[in-house]
Amino acid sequence: MKWSKGYLFTLKEAPADAEIPSHILLVRGGYIRKVAPGIFTYGHLMWRSIRKFEAIVREELNRRGCVEILMPMVQPRELWEETGRWKEMGEGLQKLKNRNDHDFCLGATHEEVVTDYVRRDVKSYRDLPFNLYQVQTKFRDEIRPRFGLMRGREFIMKDAYSFDPDVAGAQKSYQQMFEAYTDIFKRLGARFRVVQADSGNIGGNQSQEFHILADSGEDQLLVSESSDFAANIEVCPAIDAQPAAAPSSELKTMEEFATPGLRTIEALAKATGTPAHQLVKTMYFSASDEPAKKLNPVAVLLRGSDEVNPVKVKNHFGLSNPPLLLTDEEVRKLTSASPGSCGPVGLNIPILMDKGVENLRNYMVGANKDDFHLRNVNHGRDYKATVVGDFRMAREGDLSPDGKGHLKAFRGIEVGHIFYLGTKYSKKMEANYLAQDQTQKPIEMGCYGIGITRTVQAVIEQNHDKDGIIWPVSVAPYVVHIALLDPDAPEARQLADKLYDDLMAKGIDVLMDDRVERPGVKFKDADLLGMPLRVNIGARGLAAGELELIERKTKKTEKVQPGALFEKIVTWVKEQSI
Amino acid sequence: MKWSKGYLFTLKEAPADAEIPSHILLVRGGYIRKVAPGIFTYGHLMWRSIRKFEAIVREELNRRGCVEILMPMVQPRELWEETGRWKEMGEGLQKLKNRNDHDFCLGATHEEVVTDYVRRDVKSYRDLPFNLYQVQTKFRDEIRPRFGLMRGREFIMKDAYSFDPDVAGAQKSYQQMFEAYTDIFKRLGARFRVVQADSGNIGGNQSQEFHILADSGEDQLLVSESSDFAANIEVCPAIDAQPAAAPSSELKTMEEFATPGLRTIEALAKATGTPAHQLVKTMYFSASDEPAKKLNPVAVLLRGSDEVNPVKVKNHFGLSNPPLLLTDEEVRKLTSASPGSCGPVGLNIPILMDKGVENLRNYMVGANKDDFHLRNVNHGRDYKATVVGDFRMAREGDLSPDGKGHLKAFRGIEVGHIFYLGTKYSKKMEANYLAQDQTQKPIEMGCYGIGITRTVQAVIEQNHDKDGIIWPVSVAPYVVHIALLDPDAPEARQLADKLYDDLMAKGIDVLMDDRVERPGVKFKDADLLGMPLRVNIGARGLAAGELELIERKTKKTEKVQPGALFEKIVTWVKEQSI
Repeated sequence: MKWSKGYLFTLKEAPADAEIPSHILLVRGGYIRKVAPGIFTYGHLMWRSIRKFEAIVREELNRRGCVEILMPMVQPRELWEETGRWKEMGEGLQKLKNRNDHDFCLGATHEEVVTDYVRRDVKSYRDLPFNLYQVQTKFRDEIRPRFGLMRGREFIMKDAYSFDPDVAGAQKSYQQMFEAYTDIFKRLGARFRVVQADSGNIGGNQSQEFHILADSGEDQLLVSESSDFAANIEVCPAIDAQPAAAPSSELKTMEEFATPGLRTIEALAKATGTPAHQLVKTMYFSASDEPAKKLNPVAVLLRGSDEVNPVKVKNHFGLSNPPLLLTDEEVRKLTSASPGSCGPVGLNIPILMDKGVENLRNYMVGANKDDFHLRNVNHGRDYKATVVGDFRMAREGDLSPDGKGHLKAFRGIEVGHIFYLGTKYSKKMEANYLAQDQTQKPIEMGCYGIGITRTVQAVIEQNHDKDGIIWPVSVAPYVVHIALLDPDAPEARQLADKLYDDLMAKGIDVLMDDRVERPGVKFKDADLLGMPLRVNIGARGLAAGELELIERKTKKTEKVQPGALFEKIVTWVKEQSI
Repeated sequence: MKWSKGYLFTLKEAPADAEIPSHILLVRGGYIRKVAPGIFTYGHLMWRSIRKFEAIVREELNRRGCVEILMPMVQPRELWEETGRWKEMGEGLQKLKNRNDHDFCLGATHEEVVTDYVRRDVKSYRDLPFNLYQVQTKFRDEIRPRFGLMRGREFIMKDAYSFDPDVAGAQKSYQQMFEAYTDIFKRLGARFRVVQADSGNIGGNQSQEFHILADSGEDQLLVSESSDFAANIEVCPAIDAQPAAAPSSELKTMEEFATPGLRTIEALAKATGTPAHQLVKTMYFSASDEPAKKLNPVAVLLRGSDEVNPVKVKNHFGLSNPPLLLTDEEVRKLTSASPGSCGPVGLNIPILMDKGVENLRNYMVGANKDDFHLRNVNHGRDYKATVVGDFRMAREGDLSPDGKGHLKAFRGIEVGHIFYLGTKYSKKMEANYLAQDQTQKPIEMGCYGIGITRTVQAVIEQNHDKDGIIWPVSVAPYVVHIALLDPDAPEARQLADKLYDDLMAKGIDVLMDDRVERPGVKFKDADLLGMPLRVNIGARGLAAGELELIERKTKKTEKVQPGALFEKIVTWVKEQSI
């Protein structure tokens, strides 16, 4: 594209609502423009990157026999009622009524629609297996959209669904998608990790996430230093590197004592001289999928130095979504005290004890009376835990759950997720097939998503510097950026035009900045937009018989004779491509 | 694709709600599946055809310097309020509220969003001209979805928008899109016509439609037999081939007479022995854009043999949408009679007289009294027409408005529409630029749509026979269909696999039916699915050294030696491609 003929406007100022570098750069480069919170227009450059990534995704899926279709974005309520997700998905599922007062939603995911599609066609085991996928605009009414396309409302996703006759087949399909995803993100050229993950309200019991590593990533990943183990902190088992010693101290007499104003673990630790990891804190949740209708209060006990992991609580109770913390008011109703003065003694609700607490003796907890605590408290004697288990967040330095080494923390941006679903949807929606033994069986399913638009932004989050974006060749909108410094000098214009035509003919995408602008403006914009390779073509360089070739990533500049330019660029591009 | 590994299910029965051949064939061939009225899943074959057509569209637009972007499908109300179309679009615009109670709509068209996008970037005449386009899923809450994708609710559209500094530039842009569209539909390989059209509620005063000709087309087109003139009947000026002779008869005395039970023109003509074209009928409309709030009754007078053209009434009053007919009840309130006994005499509302009535004298009209008519009625004397004009539908046999020959009627399916918009949107939304004379001027716009999914179905409506679809090579999901008749015979399988691989390597798309099915089933499905060229590969043919090559369109069968097959097919495909 020639800049003068295209549509390309860069901004000097970062927008006020852009918090992370990739969001700032996308807006400044004209890659995206906000239309409403979480809703964007993708500019021409962005659209090219998106389509390039889509093409990589399609190639890798088609290569593995996946079948592309397109399902609708507007979906009837009836299908979602069959699985119970019309309610379960909550307000994130954008609902609407048409002119005839029928209920619909905007597709946030397509398990219901695809299962309905398949159950109408599939009759026998001979019709299986297959994998259907689509690349589509989806919508989720995010409660707080931010970070540009990272947590947007309208976004493009690739979702795939596998259908197999049995578990062995489903696991093979899962494995195949694992490999497809690995190849996709390798071809993308970004640094990524695959981690164990929670299945959320999608269902199933096996799932892995693909993360692009970046400091501002919303997810925390824990990776073994000595093995392949990697997990999202949400599901990572927590194993103390130095567990508390087995209890030896005698049980002392429990007693109440005044703790005026001491309502945090930090304050209590400081005032009593007890380290936080020997204090016990109590957290209150509503273990209910419909907290508005039914409050189901439960308490979670942890060492003062630990953080509760709501996903572990969710999975303990088999909830669809992580449980909400009780409000201060709800806690007071339950315990007669504010959360900072609460404890397990005398409570008449389920008590989940993190195993970190199990070996503690004669510890302090809130007295369920404002500004009072109890000391010398002991479980078993003073109160009973309903269950002892792993309810805390794992952290860097914990033992790796596979027994090999310690965990190290990374931050990541979730860009892909693969799930083994089993028969959750096929059973509820009666998607059955006639097996070889002549019985009707539910189809074994898996589902597999890649956030297309999110991935493109994540690439920028991982690959940028203070001046702008650093595109990998794989998804660069254009691979070569020609900065035509003297558009009015005929010989410069001629050379630039010829190079442009020759590269395009060779299948190399070129953006040519032929505006009437100062070189400084052009260099700044070139760095901001981030095409992998830049050529400066100006009258002065031409006169000297040397033109500058600049690699965006390293900013390494090479002087090249005009006649050697084309070959040099072609070779460079070939070397970069995987 | 190999059938056994893909996802492809054909149906023997036509679905009950499919009324036209293309809809029936699309469902029977598994090309589409209804999810809700007007909302479909596109199966793999359909998706391939859609993408092939999209590729043609993109190529022709990119070739002309159009810039592809993607705007959101969920759009904030505020933008639509700026142009007044939040109301004006009526219930067809699908509205929704998000969790924060903000109003949005699903994009039915994108003039507002694109104008907003552009006004934030464009500052000066130097930033113009350009043409932005997108290929996108759109949604309109059609009151009565039918005919599959022809009048669906969710559909894919290519919409483009041109931005120019002045009228001359806008007309050049319009002409360029006219040429692009002509090339697109030529490459598609369908028979089409370009006709003058109404601008609907898009605005502007110049527009042309591209129609694929088909007997079941919803639009009636009138085309001159002797010139290039062609128009949608909606806007075609009506010129009698044999106008009524100038009036000579004396004005007789008007009198009322009983016409019990005569409430149609046909009945009145029969009972009185007067030909319908000498009778005058009165139609009542509400010339209001908000009929629910404000009824603005008007009467239209026509010869009994003519049909009223609501679009001409709409344009006379400058309405946004064609006016609605008054209900029987509303007519009675206005005239004290039922519509079959109504006339203009004594009415106190605007009366639009079609020019066909102008030369009539001493004619009959309803008496505004049930079961009575008036005879010897004369305008000027007995009532006054507010305006005389062209308010009737043109028809086959009328004179061509360009004075060259007579009109002939065709039926067409509207697949493309180009509009010159002028400054309708830029003025309302303040999309201005600084002109060379240093004044702020509104940008001149045009908009240009192609119904992508509708076009693909229209191709089928035009190209099918009793056995199934007849795809042109341009958008055939696969170009070659290999019917492997003996998948268990190793030599047949081998040859089929090799041919499949060789053709794919040559860039020719192949569908191979390798199912364990009888040849008859395979032939039927091949005809139904409609790939342009079929090869039958079976053990018997192989033994005889002759295989059958069948052209779908002509059903012409050629015997070919196995060794010559590949070259024969490659040559055939080359000859078919434009």
